[in-house]
Amino acid sequence: MRIVEIREFSAGTGEKRSNAIMDFSGMTTGFVAVVTDVIRNGKPVVGYGFSGTGRYSQNAICRERLIPRLLAADPESLLNDAGDNLDPFKAWDCMMRNEKPGGHGDRAIAVATLDMAIWDAAAKIADEPLCHFLATRYGNGTVPERIPVYVGGGYYGKTHAELQDEIRRYLDDGFTTIKMKIAGAPLAEDRKRIEAVLEVLPAGQLAVDANGNYSLEQALECGKALQEYGLRWFEEPGYPLDYHLQAEIAETYDGSLATGECLLSTWDAKNLLRYGGLRPDRDLLQFDCALSYGICEYIRTIAVMEEFGWSRSSLYPHGGHLLSLHITAGLGLGGTENYPYTHQPMGGFTDGLKVENGLVGLPETPGLGFEGKANFIRLMQENL
Amino acid sequence: MRIVEIREFSAGTGEKRSNAIMDFSGMTTGFVAVVTDVIRNGKPVVGYGFSGTGRYSQNAICRERLIPRLLAADPESLLNDAGDNLDPFKAWDCMMRNEKPGGHGDRAIAVATLDMAIWDAAAKIADEPLCHFLATRYGNGTVPERIPVYVGGGYYGKTHAELQDEIRRYLDDGFTTIKMKIAGAPLAEDRKRIEAVLEVLPAGQLAVDANGNYSLEQALECGKALQEYGLRWFEEPGYPLDYHLQAEIAETYDGSLATGECLLSTWDAKNLLRYGGLRPDRDLLQFDCALSYGICEYIRTIAVMEEFGWSRSSLYPHGGHLLSLHITAGLGLGGTENYPYTHQPMGGFTDGLKVENGLVGLPETPGLGFEGKANFIRLMQENL
Repeated sequence: MRIVEIREFSAGTGEKRSNAIMDFSGMTTGFVAVVTDVIRNGKPVVGYGFSGTGRYSQNAICRERLIPRLLAADPESLLNDAGDNLDPFKAWDCMMRNEKPGGHGDRAIAVATLDMAIWDAAAKIADEPLCHFLATRYGNGTVPERIPVYVGGGYYGKTHAELQDEIRRYLDDGFTTIKMKIAGAPLAEDRKRIEAVLEVLPAGQLAVDANGNYSLEQALECGKALQEYGLRWFEEPGYPLDYHLQAEIAETYDGSLATGECLLSTWDAKNLLRYGGLRPDRDLLQFDCALSYGICEYIRTIAVMEEFGWSRSSLYPHGGHLLSLHITAGLGLGGTENYPYTHQPMGGFTDGLKVENGLVGLPETPGLGFEGKANFIRLMQENL
Repeated sequence: MRIVEIREFSAGTGEKRSNAIMDFSGMTTGFVAVVTDVIRNGKPVVGYGFSGTGRYSQNAICRERLIPRLLAADPESLLNDAGDNLDPFKAWDCMMRNEKPGGHGDRAIAVATLDMAIWDAAAKIADEPLCHFLATRYGNGTVPERIPVYVGGGYYGKTHAELQDEIRRYLDDGFTTIKMKIAGAPLAEDRKRIEAVLEVLPAGQLAVDANGNYSLEQALECGKALQEYGLRWFEEPGYPLDYHLQAEIAETYDGSLATGECLLSTWDAKNLLRYGGLRPDRDLLQFDCALSYGICEYIRTIAVMEEFGWSRSSLYPHGGHLLSLHITAGLGLGGTENYPYTHQPMGGFTDGLKVENGLVGLPETPGLGFEGKANFIRLMQENL
């Protein structure tokens, strides 16, 4: 068996939305299809991947460096020992051949895009949903029936009444934990936005996300102001690589902190754990698998977390899509984000998968289950 | 005045050469030309840039994200206060608009490629060599007549006799400090290579570069073995983001250490200084301007270094090309690398610039002086 062809395209998401630091209207996403010569139900098995949410398509790096390496490799060198399926770790090593160490940015996204498609194909070849495929090989062997999910929303550009309506809609949808954006406005204005939301949501269910926009002084001031609310968590107070700031906040803010979505490699994650002062008894880590070299690297990141005394249940992958859902279920993580309405068609899970009491079920189709997400698979069929 | 057009192309370097971790035969370099409407000697001023040495062309990121932002900007918003030249810092901010924080990899190279061309154009518009343009604005106002340079070579794939011949050739060329690769072979074999080189070069003039290939144990073992030679410096013992390893080596190795070429942003540099245990009285920092967001970011990195008690003379920019030469002269840095024969046509300085006693003069043409480097300017004229 072998990879026969790798197709790819990029698309603009064109969403009118912004947070403290980004306008998303020019955002693009990369999509890839890894076509194998394995036949299931009369058709070749195809694995799909995309470049995560919130950063740009990196398909040019796939085209120029990674896909040529995969297609030039001896097909046998990418298979598992039994020779009956792709070995994603071997494909990962192949993609990273002749790449210099350090510099974990856009390349991490490009590798993750293809890694997702390779795991999708491998799970489909094994005829298992990805979460089961992962659980039996890299988890504890079992998959829970339902997974904790929170919803990311509360962007700027809405009145308080519109913000409250958005929150009510999430509650109606079955979410219990809801995250809103802060730090894109002066603290006094953000307090009013938070207080408007707290009129319709208990504080223990509201998380706030500063998207790394605060200086140390601002972050400390905001932490002091947030303390009284008793929120679920305070996310990315400062610049993602500012481990010193993170450690200072952890000294003074009693509640839960969360960070990690902008650290795109195991090495960056390790430095956060080593120097960031985070507390395994209350803080959340949110490394984004689709932006940080994919599942192979995520499994290495989990090993580093465990080495530093963290439980897998502290890990809440960022991204709000099917990849995060499957790794959460298959690798025994704490819970994950969901973007049911934003970042489409990547955001959200398979159609009809209902959220109830903040928990969601799992897709039962082989692979990631893209075939059960109509807007995603339609885009693939139109373009690949 | 305004940027009229930005042209770009990529080329393979096709060099048969390898170090501890990389085979360079598939390496590519990106080139850009920023065309302005300013006329000098009857022709429009054009600034050139390239994507450094040792990592791949990132022109796709230039094409997809950075160039469209520069060309869409109000031309006045990219000018200095007098309105008579480009302001590279304003262009830098424009390129980084709507880029998420963290993830400093390929994007850092793409920004640096265009940043180089914008500074080249700005210095040409001011009718000054870049080193003078920098010295009067961001240095101490003066430029030394000659600059310390060392030569990077000693790659694998040569017999000891060939390695010695290579070293003799560098000495004949006027270099005094020479760097060779280690860590691509077992330590016993590297010791023999080092000892072969020491037959033709005093130990205080030989630096060794492990390209980040050692584990902590290997790095400590190698440091112990190197100690007796009294080499000029021991470069990149471990993974570039492993600040802990770096600090451990600094505890036990008395000689000079050097690192930094794989840290692609001011934030990564700051974390190295904060956590890497390096010693301002003897160690060298080698941040590569052409790979780490260019001159604007380099000036910010220098400010962070000074904040942490380092002198500019500890900074030896990696890269071995005209950009490193000009920033070393203009910003008062300690010295720089030179690649007279490898990484062509980017490596090395302008034609006819002679190295004597380990020192080199400076180009006197406006900008970086690409017009005085025949193999570089020929490639530009053929492709842009």
